Amino acid sequence: MRQSSRGSCIKVGLVGYGKTGQAVAKIVSESEGVSLQWICRRNSGPVQASLEAIPIFSIYQDRDLAKYLKKASVDCIIDFSAPDALRLYGPIAAAEGISIISANSAHTADEIQFAKSLGEKTQVMCAPNITFGINFLLLAATALHRLAPQVDVAIVEEHFREKTEISGTAKRIASVLGVDEAEIRSLRLGGIIGSHQVVFGFPYQTLRLSHESISREAFGTGAIYAAKLLAQQDVGFYTYDQLLLSYLIEELQRMKGK
Amino acid sequence: MRQSSRGSCIKVGLVGYGKTGQAVAKIVSESEGVSLQWICRRNSGPVQASLEAIPIFSIYQDRDLAKYLKKASVDCIIDFSAPDALRLYGPIAAAEGISIISANSAHTADEIQFAKSLGEKTQVMCAPNITFGINFLLLAATALHRLAPQVDVAIVEEHFREKTEISGTAKRIASVLGVDEAEIRSLRLGGIIGSHQVVFGFPYQTLRLSHESISREAFGTGAIYAAKLLAQQDVGFYTYDQLLLSYLIEELQRMKGK
Amino acid sequence: MRQSSRGSCIKVGLVGYGKTGQAVAKIVSESEGVSLQWICRRNSGPVQASLEAIPIFSIYQDRDLAKYLKKASVDCIIDFSAPDALRLYGPIAAAEGISIISANSAHTADEIQFAKSLGEKTQVMCAPNITFGINFLLLAATALHRLAPQVDVAIVEEHFREKTEISGTAKRIASVLGVDEAEIRSLRLGGIIGSHQVVFGFPYQTLRLSHESISREAFGTGAIYAAKLLAQQDVGFYTYDQLLLSYLIEELQRMKGK
Amino acid sequence: MRQSSRGSCIKVGLVGYGKTGQAVAKIVSESEGVSLQWICRRNSGPVQASLEAIPIFSIYQDRDLAKYLKKASVDCIIDFSAPDALRLYGPIAAAEGISIISANSAHTADEIQFAKSLGEKTQVMCAPNITFGINFLLLAATALHRLAPQVDVAIVEEHFREKTEISGTAKRIASVLGVDEAEIRSLRLGGIIGSHQVVFGFPYQTLRLSHESISREAFGTGAIYAAKLLAQQDVGFYTYDQLLLSYLIEELQRMKGK
Repeated sequence: MRQSSRGSCIKVGLVGYGKTGQAVAKIVSESEGVSLQWICRRNSGPVQASLEAIPIFSIYQDRDLAKYLKKASVDCIIDFSAPDALRLYGPIAAAEGISIISANSAHTADEIQFAKSLGEKTQVMCAPNITFGINFLLLAATALHRLAPQVDVAIVEEHFREKTEISGTAKRIASVLGVDEAEIRSLRLGGIIGSHQVVFGFPYQTLRLSHESISREAFGTGAIYAAKLLAQQDVGFYTYDQLLLSYLIEELQRMKGK
Repeated sequence: MRQSSRGSCIKVGLVGYGKTGQAVAKIVSESEGVSLQWICRRNSGPVQASLEAIPIFSIYQDRDLAKYLKKASVDCIIDFSAPDALRLYGPIAAAEGISIISANSAHTADEIQFAKSLGEKTQVMCAPNITFGINFLLLAATALHRLAPQVDVAIVEEHFREKTEISGTAKRIASVLGVDEAEIRSLRLGGIIGSHQVVFGFPYQTLRLSHESISREAFGTGAIYAAKLLAQQDVGFYTYDQLLLSYLIEELQRMKGK
Repeated sequence: MRQSSRGSCIKVGLVGYGKTGQAVAKIVSESEGVSLQWICRRNSGPVQASLEAIPIFSIYQDRDLAKYLKKASVDCIIDFSAPDALRLYGPIAAAEGISIISANSAHTADEIQFAKSLGEKTQVMCAPNITFGINFLLLAATALHRLAPQVDVAIVEEHFREKTEISGTAKRIASVLGVDEAEIRSLRLGGIIGSHQVVFGFPYQTLRLSHESISREAFGTGAIYAAKLLAQQDVGFYTYDQLLLSYLIEELQRMKGK
Repeated sequence: MRQSSRGSCIKVGLVGYGKTGQAVAKIVSESEGVSLQWICRRNSGPVQASLEAIPIFSIYQDRDLAKYLKKASVDCIIDFSAPDALRLYGPIAAAEGISIISANSAHTADEIQFAKSLGEKTQVMCAPNITFGINFLLLAATALHRLAPQVDVAIVEEHFREKTEISGTAKRIASVLGVDEAEIRSLRLGGIIGSHQVVFGFPYQTLRLSHESISREAFGTGAIYAAKLLAQQDVGFYTYDQLLLSYLIEELQRMKGK
């Protein structure tokens, strides 16, 4: 991981406190280089004991919304809520120059457009899957596909029984590799947290890139990594894999130079 | 794969006709863009029926060695024999400007040094494992390790029961990733052709890059791919993964530009 | 493997000499405890050099068919040809008391019925996949499904690009586990010989049983194993997994007794 | 799963409230057919909110120990504490006819002997890994090894970085399969909860049995399954896999009879 500038600590506001939001809150509050300033949630309910000192409010009801959304309060908003929240806090945050990481799994084209418009004033990132591992897998698979375009490719994803829709991450991989969404092989089994595998079938060899999620905390470490990367960028609209791509190219060039 | 210049066909001489050499001969003789001109082998014995028209000779005994090793005869020598053969044919081939692909699995430092000296006169490549898949895996693993150096890494290799030594490919992966050779996990089981897996263990996610060999023919397609890449390079000494790295960086830059 | 009676050697006639038949011929001719007596093939064409001394004929054309199909000639017919061949050689073989292993991958209900009628006179086995590994996997998966019927189950099969239909083995697994055929996940990729995986998803754990074919020779060792098992049975109709089931129960009872 | 007698509910006392004990407490308190009566822990500390109504005491300090260890209080003790606890509560529990499940991962020969002596008065089970999946894997691997003893076998286990010792489960698998402990391949990587794989290498095929733990809650469902099985047994000493073996043989015999 890149070093953030020495001694700095990124002040984070967290939007969304569902299952994933809770895991992210735990990781952000425990990690170095970031500091959790507040949590914004839709509904009321109990909070993890360790976070009881953190202010909590609701974008949907709080009259003093603006006071939380100030540069003085936070440097970066990490959003694991529903996609519509961005319309509520986005303009105020952008005006304040607060960077935004929208980690919702399914943005519409309209929402992406809206996020891009915010990117004229601050750093904005949309990341349907914000784990480092998935984004690396996406880049590696894309690179391999471009180097060997004639090679057969298949995408397999496994998730817990209750997940009805196809994984958004798998769809994104399919889109980048030019695989028809209908060709994604989805398995729904017991309590599997989440796994994605891209298989490349050559005539005499097979290459597999696979990613297994152990727990939702991965989204927390991914969001922190993204926040640190974003802090070093100019104002603009970014995706996680594009940012990672820039660093990947830099590293490969260093490897070549050796 | 890069296009070789239109209409061209690379004339290939094959040194080594053991199990791997035979599979390579089959693939080279059947593939477009390359043409098998002769086979050089240590011992006598039967040849595949489809190759009966190909001249066969021995570097160790043939008085007319020089006549085969001429630019007029071949553009590229692909060598799957023992490492010492390079000393016999190398100087003549280099003087003729014939490119050399030495695909032996275990070169000593001395042999590498000798190969580098030949690289002053022609294009020379040393490749302990010449499959596209393994070299891509090596690059992807190295890149990931550089982007996330603190992440745990393990190397697992599986081969057939009779293979006593640790896989040379696994050793190369270990060396590049800074893993102690003693940490390689080797499994020897039945008739497994060969598999290599690099596992990256993050706190909340796991990433696996794995390669399975289906048959020795993979070395043939890899050697042809290498011969075509090499035909586009300047005189010099190359490794497969370095050459692939250059193309990978080019592709990633195109991806970024999109 | 069970010991066949001391000193005995099963005389085998092989019907079918396509890609699989050739691999089986090689294994049967090289293995102990069996002896390849003749090969019966539909079309003419070259034969492996090592088998040149073996008589070859065609069921479809040979006038002297009956002379080959005699108990004096063979103890067991191993059939990797098309399903219709059984109607030609079956009645003669059954009358002679020659045991029959029909290893075709897709028998119709009619053909199974016909095979059962032959089972009134000799030992007959139908085995859509005759490898030991697949049949063990089938038994283990069935047993697990019966012990834990509420657990989610998925079937994944991978084969080479050119295989258009769903694997017959996967269909059989699905049928036994009560999984809808439409739920089988099929991947078609490069040159993968064949792999089958059954995944059991529990709420907090996942169990995978997987089988990978390395080469068609597996059918040869499986057929020999089957021939030896069958030699110890009474006249009747058998499937490979049923026979294996009997031995499995015996072994488990020995384990329990320990 | 076998049905327990209608309407019955097994009253459970839980010994041990470390990370695993907490996960087990959660599952036992939420599951049908069992009822969590008390928790016994070594140290004080906070308890899950949902368990606040459950009595908590310490075997090491409580003067009224005997009152908890009464048949009137519980039917079964599930123990995920340290092995030495059994010596404290075991004799009292056995005298009361309370069944005991000792799920510690490393019992010494002495402790096993002590547990067997308790098995003269009540039902006692020692289970180094109490998940259904691992015990099924153990049985399936053992059966396969007995049916095909000449086949190569390897054991691979993966766990989180901090786990220094070889997995007790892997050692047990090795012992049953006659594999030298030194041959176990252990990978220590990031946050992997736990995975075990047994690989069988045939000359032309490979069979893999693998188990992945998703979370410690698997120990809870396994313990409940064990408690229900144990409730149907006579007084005696049992291991989880032996009990499962009996049910497996029964199911296989039903399969055969079909």
